[in-house]
Amino acid sequence: MTSEAEMAAEEGYIYSPPTFPSTPCSIHLGVQAGSMRRGSDVLSTSGGRMRERGRNRSWLLSSIITVNVLILGIALVSGSVFNNIKINAIDLQIFLIVLVILTTAWMLYYTIYTSREDHAVLYKDSHAGPVWLRGGLVLFGICSLIMDVFKIANYVGYLHCDSAVKIVFPAVQSVFILVQTYFLWLHAKDCVQLQRNITRCGLMLTLSTNLMLWMAAVTEESIHQTVVPPEEGNSTHSYDIRAPGGYSSCNCSHSACAILEKAYYYLYPFNIEYSLFASAMAYVMWKNVGRLVDEHNHHSLHFHLKDVLVGPVVGLVMLVAGLGTFVIYEVDVEKGDPGKRDTALMIHYVMNTVAVTLMSVSTVAGCAIYRLDQRDHVSGKNPTRSLDVGLLIGASIGQFTICYFTIVAVVGTGAMGHLNALNLAVSLLTVIQLCLQNIFIIEGLHREPFHEDMHRASVFTNPYVLQAQAHRDIHNLPGTFMETKLSPALTVHSMHVAPSGSPLPQRHRLTWKRRALKEICAFLLLCNILLWIMPAFGARPQFDNTIGAEFYEFTMWVAVVNIGLPFGIFYRMHSVASLFEVFLTS
Amino acid sequence: MTSEAEMAAEEGYIYSPPTFPSTPCSIHLGVQAGSMRRGSDVLSTSGGRMRERGRNRSWLLSSIITVNVLILGIALVSGSVFNNIKINAIDLQIFLIVLVILTTAWMLYYTIYTSREDHAVLYKDSHAGPVWLRGGLVLFGICSLIMDVFKIANYVGYLHCDSAVKIVFPAVQSVFILVQTYFLWLHAKDCVQLQRNITRCGLMLTLSTNLMLWMAAVTEESIHQTVVPPEEGNSTHSYDIRAPGGYSSCNCSHSACAILEKAYYYLYPFNIEYSLFASAMAYVMWKNVGRLVDEHNHHSLHFHLKDVLVGPVVGLVMLVAGLGTFVIYEVDVEKGDPGKRDTALMIHYVMNTVAVTLMSVSTVAGCAIYRLDQRDHVSGKNPTRSLDVGLLIGASIGQFTICYFTIVAVVGTGAMGHLNALNLAVSLLTVIQLCLQNIFIIEGLHREPFHEDMHRASVFTNPYVLQAQAHRDIHNLPGTFMETKLSPALTVHSMHVAPSGSPLPQRHRLTWKRRALKEICAFLLLCNILLWIMPAFGARPQFDNTIGAEFYEFTMWVAVVNIGLPFGIFYRMHSVASLFEVFLTS
Repeated sequence: MTSEAEMAAEEGYIYSPPTFPSTPCSIHLGVQAGSMRRGSDVLSTSGGRMRERGRNRSWLLSSIITVNVLILGIALVSGSVFNNIKINAIDLQIFLIVLVILTTAWMLYYTIYTSREDHAVLYKDSHAGPVWLRGGLVLFGICSLIMDVFKIANYVGYLHCDSAVKIVFPAVQSVFILVQTYFLWLHAKDCVQLQRNITRCGLMLTLSTNLMLWMAAVTEESIHQTVVPPEEGNSTHSYDIRAPGGYSSCNCSHSACAILEKAYYYLYPFNIEYSLFASAMAYVMWKNVGRLVDEHNHHSLHFHLKDVLVGPVVGLVMLVAGLGTFVIYEVDVEKGDPGKRDTALMIHYVMNTVAVTLMSVSTVAGCAIYRLDQRDHVSGKNPTRSLDVGLLIGASIGQFTICYFTIVAVVGTGAMGHLNALNLAVSLLTVIQLCLQNIFIIEGLHREPFHEDMHRASVFTNPYVLQAQAHRDIHNLPGTFMETKLSPALTVHSMHVAPSGSPLPQRHRLTWKRRALKEICAFLLLCNILLWIMPAFGARPQFDNTIGAEFYEFTMWVAVVNIGLPFGIFYRMHSVASLFEVFLTS
Repeated sequence: MTSEAEMAAEEGYIYSPPTFPSTPCSIHLGVQAGSMRRGSDVLSTSGGRMRERGRNRSWLLSSIITVNVLILGIALVSGSVFNNIKINAIDLQIFLIVLVILTTAWMLYYTIYTSREDHAVLYKDSHAGPVWLRGGLVLFGICSLIMDVFKIANYVGYLHCDSAVKIVFPAVQSVFILVQTYFLWLHAKDCVQLQRNITRCGLMLTLSTNLMLWMAAVTEESIHQTVVPPEEGNSTHSYDIRAPGGYSSCNCSHSACAILEKAYYYLYPFNIEYSLFASAMAYVMWKNVGRLVDEHNHHSLHFHLKDVLVGPVVGLVMLVAGLGTFVIYEVDVEKGDPGKRDTALMIHYVMNTVAVTLMSVSTVAGCAIYRLDQRDHVSGKNPTRSLDVGLLIGASIGQFTICYFTIVAVVGTGAMGHLNALNLAVSLLTVIQLCLQNIFIIEGLHREPFHEDMHRASVFTNPYVLQAQAHRDIHNLPGTFMETKLSPALTVHSMHVAPSGSPLPQRHRLTWKRRALKEICAFLLLCNILLWIMPAFGARPQFDNTIGAEFYEFTMWVAVVNIGLPFGIFYRMHSVASLFEVFLTS
């Protein structure tokens, strides 16, 4: 009824760079779209309108589904936590089982449907589902599967006196994780064109399910941490996060229970990360439904480390030193001796202070170089990049929250001593570092790459021009309307490229600006890996230093840390990936 | 350096309808933009790039400011609530005073600056800051001012034993409310073109300040409601929301304290609404910075009630009956007799059930008419409309939350009896009604108005075409490129209008579809006014029926209701305004 290209124009869903080549491109767009019309104008227009209507309707419907599922879920979670009667944990799990089964069914349907239909997925978004996200998903998925197996084995021991739902839930969840990991690995880049309404709703269901699982896991971990073993009484809180949650009157029928329980609580953070990763990917897929993108969009940039030395070396030194202190910290804290614990915390804080300070200083230098640098900004709106930036800033909120809560706690108690001073310093510097790093990464992602085929990349972001170009190459008609209109743009663009880039000499030797930027990116990347490893593998100075738990009520503090930390971990991984991209384009 | 029109094209910030007239318009866009260039291509392009860079940078900077202010604020609020030491209320107020003074200073600067500069505000967004929002702002602003006066008078009595900050804060806040109401009344529609960076940051500061004031007010009201008067002891909670908060050892030096305190706690909900309204307006202004909109965009639709009878009459009957039951409810609940309270609640629930059921049924009928109706969908992306829809759905989340929490509580306790059954029924029906009403309103807002100058309105949303048209009218050159290209679009569009609208006969007599839609809108509008009045003027069945407070911990339930209800009130007001718009366009 109407061509794909026209559909795109009607949905306003193409990467058309309005900044620079707006004049020639928009003419091309018009000519191209006009020449591609097959039916009558009226027919194709009403088709576009139908599609627009469908988009609005499915957008609305999928939003309403999400809102309802999430709010009902929040009510159930709150009911199971704040309820005086404590009967709702099973109800919540039944709700989750229903959600998980529905989502799994939809994902299977989608996978089968798209494998049978040829035109279901015509376009792939090359920016969506990058390898670090999919790799992280698989890694955390494996850990989650192990957790589920441990859970099943553990609850089998309680079967004689506890609900069977507690076994059914991890079993269903493990199937869900297998299906979802497969689904997201294969389809994360899809821009679905057929059955958009169902796909939008299905993806929003996936998002809701993952957010619900995340919420349930965070709550369960928080409750587990705040449960006071009966022998200690009610007067003092237990600050040890590794304390096993107690069953009041139900004893395990096999001997492995205690070990299993301890083991699967170690794996909880990975499951929480898994849900966050899957949520992010489902959201990106939802945004991509019905979008038409140019598959040639991705620049083929190559990674090589020549001419870059100082950054990686200093970064590696930091990484090795950091990992050393991390091991010392973990060993000393595990012993439970208060004196040792304070020393371990001190070393940890000093290490963090040094890392964060160096990172801030180098980021400031990087931002200064950007100001000197005359490189072009990437023109036009790029939905995937905006999403990426949104996720980066959104994920940094978790870390911000923990830092500000720590600052208020330390300042509020007026606590003295080296440990508190260092804690305050680390928190303040981390806030500064986060702000600076966000600015640096976002500024870096918005610059045109230093690359020899730069002008091709920026002109070809519009698929119509690409097609027009291909068309021209085949027919090779000189002096046509297209030819005459396109040429000024290319000329002007090349003129503009020349003073800033001067591409030819660059291939052999980097300018000092490029080199400095690459050094800074490499250093920041390695430091971010360090700051990712420490919380991801179990460092919890927020609990080992009792000031937060003492200042706020313990429940409140546990909630803040358990919600904030996984986002912080996600943020560091995302930063590493973004810094790598900035490194390549610099 | 570069023309306004080109700037718009570069920022991608125009209302260009991509659906229908994409082919001719995009050609025009190109030609027009090309002919309007004054300087050399390179110069004007780098100007556009500079602007784009500025936009990204100021967007980023203002986001970072907001995130930092809000998270620090949340930490301070949490510290003052969950703190064992309870020293932080004053720190929080000092933080708020600083924020309020900064925001007031910026708003004064902005007002003075824009009044002196001619080109600071070239465009106004006619959809932004509608009269109901500005009227509500003034109304709630006056109530907030009275509250501040009462607060100052009250705290003067405690001056001998309490901090002077408690008097300074309401004094500063009242100045802030005066300045902000004036500022938003005058400038809510502005699309700022000069000093965009400062304006973006200033508006985000305004937004943060209002959200912080909202958060502080919600927290203070919640604490006030959960404070147990000392004589009642700790074993039972006080569920009466009108109980005055107690000072432990500090007595008031004048006799009016008790009355003042009671009075200003009545005014708290208005202050909370005021902050929400101001936040919404500041956010819309922030989105509008740098946008170029066509001032002729607004349709001049006239309001007349002829041919519409059943809807308004039934609606008025509902409104009067509802207000009657509301008065009975308030009088009976005030007496404090449990028997009377249950009867009052019963009447209230029955009234709500009837209203919500009728509303749902009529909304379903309305949606069915939309399906039959062949009217065009408004084409193209309209940022203001998207924002409006987003605010509508966002505000409905408050009501959803309360409903789902109630459902879980009633089902979870398995409570029997008429009262609980009615409570459950009202909550379930309200959820359904909210979903349906959202669909109905959004569908209605996305339809083209039934109007005689319909095609002018939809074609002229693109300012370039408007300019081209004006240009053509002045020069009146026949047979130019523009002329020949523009005419097919107009022709096709008129062709398309003819079968669905048939404008001429409509002016005299409405078709049954239009009439039915108008009846439904009028009925829904009046019912939404009823559902707005009841919570806005003090009906709190959520507290009078103790099931929520018994099922959840009381603190949790107070937080849910106090956060959810103001959004619910905002939602009802917003619905009334949107339904009025749908009424006009039907």
